Amino acid sequence: MTHLSLSDVHDVAYTCLTANGCDHENATAVADTVTLAERDGAAGHGLFRIPGYITALKSGKVDGHVRTTIEHVTPSMLRADGHGGFAPLALATARDPLVAATRTQGIAMAGLVRVHHFAALWVEIEALTSAGLVAFACTAYMPTVVPAGGTEPIYGTNPLAFGWPRGDQPPMVFDMATAAMARGEVMVAARDGHPVPEGVGLDKDGNPTTDAQAIVDGGQLLPFGGYKGSGIAMMVELLAAGVIGERFSFEAGDADNKDGGPPRGGEFLLAIDPSKMGGDDWLDHGEKFFARYLRIDGTRLPGTRRMSHRAANEANGVDVNDDLLAKISDLTTGAT
Amino acid sequence: MTHLSLSDVHDVAYTCLTANGCDHENATAVADTVTLAERDGAAGHGLFRIPGYITALKSGKVDGHVRTTIEHVTPSMLRADGHGGFAPLALATARDPLVAATRTQGIAMAGLVRVHHFAALWVEIEALTSAGLVAFACTAYMPTVVPAGGTEPIYGTNPLAFGWPRGDQPPMVFDMATAAMARGEVMVAARDGHPVPEGVGLDKDGNPTTDAQAIVDGGQLLPFGGYKGSGIAMMVELLAAGVIGERFSFEAGDADNKDGGPPRGGEFLLAIDPSKMGGDDWLDHGEKFFARYLRIDGTRLPGTRRMSHRAANEANGVDVNDDLLAKISDLTTGAT
Repeated sequence: MTHLSLSDVHDVAYTCLTANGCDHENATAVADTVTLAERDGAAGHGLFRIPGYITALKSGKVDGHVRTTIEHVTPSMLRADGHGGFAPLALATARDPLVAATRTQGIAMAGLVRVHHFAALWVEIEALTSAGLVAFACTAYMPTVVPAGGTEPIYGTNPLAFGWPRGDQPPMVFDMATAAMARGEVMVAARDGHPVPEGVGLDKDGNPTTDAQAIVDGGQLLPFGGYKGSGIAMMVELLAAGVIGERFSFEAGDADNKDGGPPRGGEFLLAIDPSKMGGDDWLDHGEKFFARYLRIDGTRLPGTRRMSHRAANEANGVDVNDDLLAKISDLTTGAT
Repeated sequence: MTHLSLSDVHDVAYTCLTANGCDHENATAVADTVTLAERDGAAGHGLFRIPGYITALKSGKVDGHVRTTIEHVTPSMLRADGHGGFAPLALATARDPLVAATRTQGIAMAGLVRVHHFAALWVEIEALTSAGLVAFACTAYMPTVVPAGGTEPIYGTNPLAFGWPRGDQPPMVFDMATAAMARGEVMVAARDGHPVPEGVGLDKDGNPTTDAQAIVDGGQLLPFGGYKGSGIAMMVELLAAGVIGERFSFEAGDADNKDGGPPRGGEFLLAIDPSKMGGDDWLDHGEKFFARYLRIDGTRLPGTRRMSHRAANEANGVDVNDDLLAKISDLTTGAT
């Protein structure tokens, strides 16, 4: 492992992205997102993703020079068209217009279309909670998750995230795959020879299994929580594709060039200003709920672990896998 | 069992409600909701609820003569104040203004405050899907569900519902408790001596159990889907109480008079016009998703069973428990 400061992480990502066809704005936005992931201990969304980003640039699936355009469909509804670029620049571009619309209208949504999303959702959630807004986001992906009762995939891992602002404290944010387990986690379990819990996946013949390798080898992931979680995964499809006119997971899978980089898809973002209806004491009211919640033995707020990684990694930097750094270095120098 | 037409069901409900302090408008709205539940085979939300509605009228917790007032907080945000009445009249009153706001703004929400909700959410979801809108609703209740990791309740059964319009076909609607199982279902299992699945509840000492009676006897319900479902239950609290300035489940529990009728609470309703961003072919696009989904062996759309009950019960009427009918009859004649 090599020890890097967060500034080093950003440089490694930025340099590799610009060497492979991203302009300054796009490289900065992607490197920012990668750095935030490393900062919060989410290595699976950090530098680990750089080879996939580069693959998508090299195959021409993603354009590293585009700008996002914002259309006000209504005063409460924005379309952020990424024109085939990576999602981070689209999210950064959509953020201020969405905040402004929400402050005026009390509630507003942004549909991100023609973007390639390859990161966690808490990044965009925190961008909204930091403005004092309640935030909800979801995105569909590639068909890798089987609906409850079935044996063939139609859902992506279809993450869904929600955030509540807490004033000077870190916001309450959860960001969950509606898959029982993220594919990356199953791959790690397979690599380490660990089983996964019941209900996580099926083997290649459609039988339930706790063998992580059997899920990786042509098997399928299941939604969390059985039929109920399967319904939530369907809601994600309908919001992140149906409502905003982008591709369902199955359509993204059919259309993708299978280069291993992120497919084209959409994202649904919703923001609400809690001061509009929640009363002047909305912040204290929320805190009363959290206090009652935390008084219960054994509970912790979602995101707590991420926040403790954040504090440590901001102070100390992070350790990054040497093979990964060597690979990113090759991608950087090989491109020049 | 006594066989009743749906018109008879409505009469039984309406007569009992008016005999116990509901005016025509409130009795009609509640009887409509009760009748829709019987029609769709959801007996637990049908006439079975009448004694609870009457209890709340008799104790003075609920006022059967109020009218709902609608305030346009912003063009996209409505407050529907039920002034301490039952939820059905508030929902009926809020429906057209919410549809109008959504048609104009593309997305709109209604916060129902000072209402007493004692029914299923698919009723209000279908009222919006029938106008061609995508709909989302959730409500908190009384603290009966323990957060993941804890042993004391803070969540209500906190149902969440979502609907997608399908043109001439019945809409896709799911309506799920975020509790692993609705309390009523656990009570039925206990009555019938059946166990419940693992993960449904804890006994009175906080230990996991599959003994339904042990959950009923001072035990607690768990959220569906472990930590992820627990996060969704928290989101319901924050939307249906925090955002709209109503009581969290724990506050509703603290404030309730414990008469057995529905506590005061709030409901969060969201509607989106899919024609605004989904493209001219948004309906066909959704149908492509459902066709792909239904092509998978073993799947069915949420709500399918309810729709088959609906067809049968509209044609043939329903059978209602004699003890329940006798009880409602006593409540009706005893009040006059």
